Amino acid sequence: MIVDRLIDEIKKKANPTALGLDTCAEYLPDGLRDKITDFRSAARAVLEFNKNVLDATADLVPAVKLQAAYYEMYGGYGMDAFRDTMEYAKQNGLITIADVKRNDIASTAAAYSKAYLSRSDIGVAAYGFDFITVNPYLGSDGIEPFLEDCKERDRGLFVLVKTSNESSSELQNRALADGRTVYELVSDYVAEWGKDLVGHYGFSAVGAVVGATQKEELAALRKRHGKMFFLIPGYGAQGGSADALAAAFDDGAGAVVNNSRGIIRAHKKFPGLKYCDAARKAAILMKEDLARIF
Amino acid sequence: MIVDRLIDEIKKKANPTALGLDTCAEYLPDGLRDKITDFRSAARAVLEFNKNVLDATADLVPAVKLQAAYYEMYGGYGMDAFRDTMEYAKQNGLITIADVKRNDIASTAAAYSKAYLSRSDIGVAAYGFDFITVNPYLGSDGIEPFLEDCKERDRGLFVLVKTSNESSSELQNRALADGRTVYELVSDYVAEWGKDLVGHYGFSAVGAVVGATQKEELAALRKRHGKMFFLIPGYGAQGGSADALAAAFDDGAGAVVNNSRGIIRAHKKFPGLKYCDAARKAAILMKEDLARIF
Repeated sequence: MIVDRLIDEIKKKANPTALGLDTCAEYLPDGLRDKITDFRSAARAVLEFNKNVLDATADLVPAVKLQAAYYEMYGGYGMDAFRDTMEYAKQNGLITIADVKRNDIASTAAAYSKAYLSRSDIGVAAYGFDFITVNPYLGSDGIEPFLEDCKERDRGLFVLVKTSNESSSELQNRALADGRTVYELVSDYVAEWGKDLVGHYGFSAVGAVVGATQKEELAALRKRHGKMFFLIPGYGAQGGSADALAAAFDDGAGAVVNNSRGIIRAHKKFPGLKYCDAARKAAILMKEDLARIF
Repeated sequence: MIVDRLIDEIKKKANPTALGLDTCAEYLPDGLRDKITDFRSAARAVLEFNKNVLDATADLVPAVKLQAAYYEMYGGYGMDAFRDTMEYAKQNGLITIADVKRNDIASTAAAYSKAYLSRSDIGVAAYGFDFITVNPYLGSDGIEPFLEDCKERDRGLFVLVKTSNESSSELQNRALADGRTVYELVSDYVAEWGKDLVGHYGFSAVGAVVGATQKEELAALRKRHGKMFFLIPGYGAQGGSADALAAAFDDGAGAVVNNSRGIIRAHKKFPGLKYCDAARKAAILMKEDLARIF
């Protein structure tokens, strides 16, 4: 099962890092950005950057997370770079996560699931990621089509539970009349949605997105759901630290921690290094930082 | 302001219908579907269908809503058809709504906003819709980048408040400790987010998505927010009726009602008619149905 493969890769590389490829023109080093004149050349530069960063880090990291928004900025060309990056990451043995945060009513959720996890209605797959992120605001019938494809094609989901941004409290930490918070309620649904997709480590392929900036909620959620797998964004650029993450892990498993700008913009932090070397250095530093608590 | 233009078009055509182009191979009439062998030909067939349906209905309907999921199934080719359909609808004088339900933390929400409302970081626009739909689960800082582009480029948003699907109650109708429901709380944020974007009819360019299937909530929300503009999906195929919508309107304004499958699959209902003629007939029947309460 895909969640077991993810855990195996984390154990093999002794590193729970997901390389976050939020790649866009603005973030590229000068030499690559200078080549861009239109969407086609932007998509080509993004893909070249992604491949080089993957070459420099694939032996270190078990997974890659692609943030769709940055690719969507460049129209159809951007989506081709999104697909080609996913394929290159798969060729390099990485688990692939599409951070798309999709959500809709059942018939439309089925179309999103066909797009990112499965095959379109003409039988061809546009992408075929191992995991995607989804937003729970619509409730169970908007999640069900994704679950069906997860079962049929050995895929997984990460459902937004407690996001890394400051305003996430406005709705997610709101107290319900039944005593739970909204994020606790959603986490209980996530546990329910994932109950038929539990792998041999005891974790389900239906996990939760919980921000690295949310120390208390990470601990509370781990206590509430001993075997729920977490995708943890917000480490590094957003201010989340390894210490905050200690409670999220369970005997070296249980979570994958995403770092995007901290790795793909490392050439800004280490100006003496080429961008690939800077990315590798940042990935090694992150691995060492997480080793303290992982 | 874009919300005024939408209201003017609704008044001019005496019709609050949004034509929902949820077009995909599965929904196409046989003659078009038979031409499809790959994503390129699928996207071409979808675009041909959309243009013909727009030709047959553009004099009747003020707005068009494109459901991104169906186009995303066909990768980059699908997104080209998404863009070309939007451009054709604009050439025909229609207000364009991208139903993308995007949501993310601020830096990524900014990328989504650049993709769908504004211009990418290389200064070129991939799309440039008049309105997009967004999901509120992340709170204010995830909405702020969209609001900035709305102000700068005269665009609008429809925020998911109470969706048309049955499971929407699981989270959206949950009672909060403060006495509100979750959807009421979200609607209060929508009012706040839209307060700097109020047009001359008194409605804001930041509106709410409320399902046609939600009769009670439509009435409660209209009572709570006298001048909040509603995008109402779920009429027709999902079972929403004109009677349920009566409370949503305010003196012939205040809402636009989407119909997708009821129009684009009308050739299934009226098998003697060509698909364009069937779509036109369905659009006329809907206009007449809504005229009773609009």
